[in-house]
Amino acid sequence: MLRVLRTVAEMKRSAAEERARGRVVALVPTMGAFHEGHLSLMRAARRENDIVVVSIFVNPAQFGPREDYKTYPRDFDGDVSKAGELGVDIVYAPSEQEMYPQGYETFVAADRTGQILCGKSRPGHFRGVLTVVLKLFTAVNPHRAYFGEKDYQQLSLIRRMVSDFHLDVEVVAMPTVREPDGLAASSRNAYLSQEARQSALGLSKALFRARKLVEEGERDALALRRQIVSWLEEDRRLAVDYVALCHPETLEEVRRIDKAVVILLAAEVDGTRLIDNLRAAL
Amino acid sequence: MLRVLRTVAEMKRSAAEERARGRVVALVPTMGAFHEGHLSLMRAARRENDIVVVSIFVNPAQFGPREDYKTYPRDFDGDVSKAGELGVDIVYAPSEQEMYPQGYETFVAADRTGQILCGKSRPGHFRGVLTVVLKLFTAVNPHRAYFGEKDYQQLSLIRRMVSDFHLDVEVVAMPTVREPDGLAASSRNAYLSQEARQSALGLSKALFRARKLVEEGERDALALRRQIVSWLEEDRRLAVDYVALCHPETLEEVRRIDKAVVILLAAEVDGTRLIDNLRAAL
Repeated sequence: MLRVLRTVAEMKRSAAEERARGRVVALVPTMGAFHEGHLSLMRAARRENDIVVVSIFVNPAQFGPREDYKTYPRDFDGDVSKAGELGVDIVYAPSEQEMYPQGYETFVAADRTGQILCGKSRPGHFRGVLTVVLKLFTAVNPHRAYFGEKDYQQLSLIRRMVSDFHLDVEVVAMPTVREPDGLAASSRNAYLSQEARQSALGLSKALFRARKLVEEGERDALALRRQIVSWLEEDRRLAVDYVALCHPETLEEVRRIDKAVVILLAAEVDGTRLIDNLRAAL
Repeated sequence: MLRVLRTVAEMKRSAAEERARGRVVALVPTMGAFHEGHLSLMRAARRENDIVVVSIFVNPAQFGPREDYKTYPRDFDGDVSKAGELGVDIVYAPSEQEMYPQGYETFVAADRTGQILCGKSRPGHFRGVLTVVLKLFTAVNPHRAYFGEKDYQQLSLIRRMVSDFHLDVEVVAMPTVREPDGLAASSRNAYLSQEARQSALGLSKALFRARKLVEEGERDALALRRQIVSWLEEDRRLAVDYVALCHPETLEEVRRIDKAVVILLAAEVDGTRLIDNLRAAL
């Protein structure tokens, strides 16, 4: 029977009870507006654990002042109903006041990996992400937490936080879920007009083409990066933010592709910021 | 029997075992070079808990690049011997490599209260403090943690972190321990020449004089602040960093003294930075 919990105190109490009974607890942190990516995380959590907690919290701390916090898609009733169908035990949906009460001032941030790629274009974004994830971890105290590889840099930073702070959480990464045509599932896809959605396809197409070139022997990361940018810039609806070929663990940019890399990119499509990434092995 | 533990893994295991046996665990975080202030924390922890863990770690992250990390007083064998005499159960003394391994990059910082007073003069100082305290908390997972009121702003920031991050730790504050002549106990007092030590006395003297004025009816915080600065500036060895009259919980500076305040100050005495504070009630 699905329960909806709204406070840190209730969440802590419930999680502690389950732990005391020897149950393995999983957390799937989300901002709601569930798409297939979220559902794949919940299904994996359901398979692998006794108790599944899904948090739904549109986290103001991870949006910039000119970003889409106010208009971010919200569908709480629909989300709860989907979670129920998948056998989720607890939806944890704290209020903004519960998470960031008057006088709130403590944040988690990452130096190096927090400042590159999306961290460069969205100052404060990962500070908000790491802070809310730490707070979800302390409220739920999960054995495992599930994140999508779609947000690759976020995943990398969360792994780093868990290791740096010695947190007892196993971070489980699930592959990016794509539409049949290749577009990565994202709550922000809802913003796209039909034309923009067609343009957005250019992102995943460029990634798959680039991976093919790596498989065929391309070793010059800078040349490949330029190639990807030029493919993207063929479409005037696309404004490229960054394209980067990085070490899959450290996220440091590489010059030579002499082992597996992850290709990451971000672009605006008619004002909607989209990200995607793909791993390429030799 | 006192044990010395050097790794996060050993510390976690030992603390978890004690917790599983129903023992109440206390943590006294220190940078070593024990003085009476540290000993008073250990005595209180010993009285009020089953297991007392004292951490000794000179935390590089809380020193600025031109500060005294390298020369900070260290006396590990002496410290362990004192801890043993006081009945401490575990000395937790991780290495720098254990706490900040290659690639470390995740930090805790506080916005408002982290940026004022000592936070203004020592950029990054409280980021280092909060980060190491969080890491000590996750390694030891204590029921209670003991801090001295001498580091009043630090104490305030740690309380705030515990509340902001929903940590299950009771923060216990112990009064500042003073030498018979009033000087607040500090590891950095060891740096003072005989003349400088005499000048250092001016700090606590100014605080006690100021408290007396408040008790006698002074209500104008700005005038009292100016008065304290002028007392301190009479001594040419003292270089005042700040004097502030603040709300005891929020640390916001007050203009009118219409309820209890805490008077905080920092000054350099012949190049040694000292801080002190005193609460003044009407």
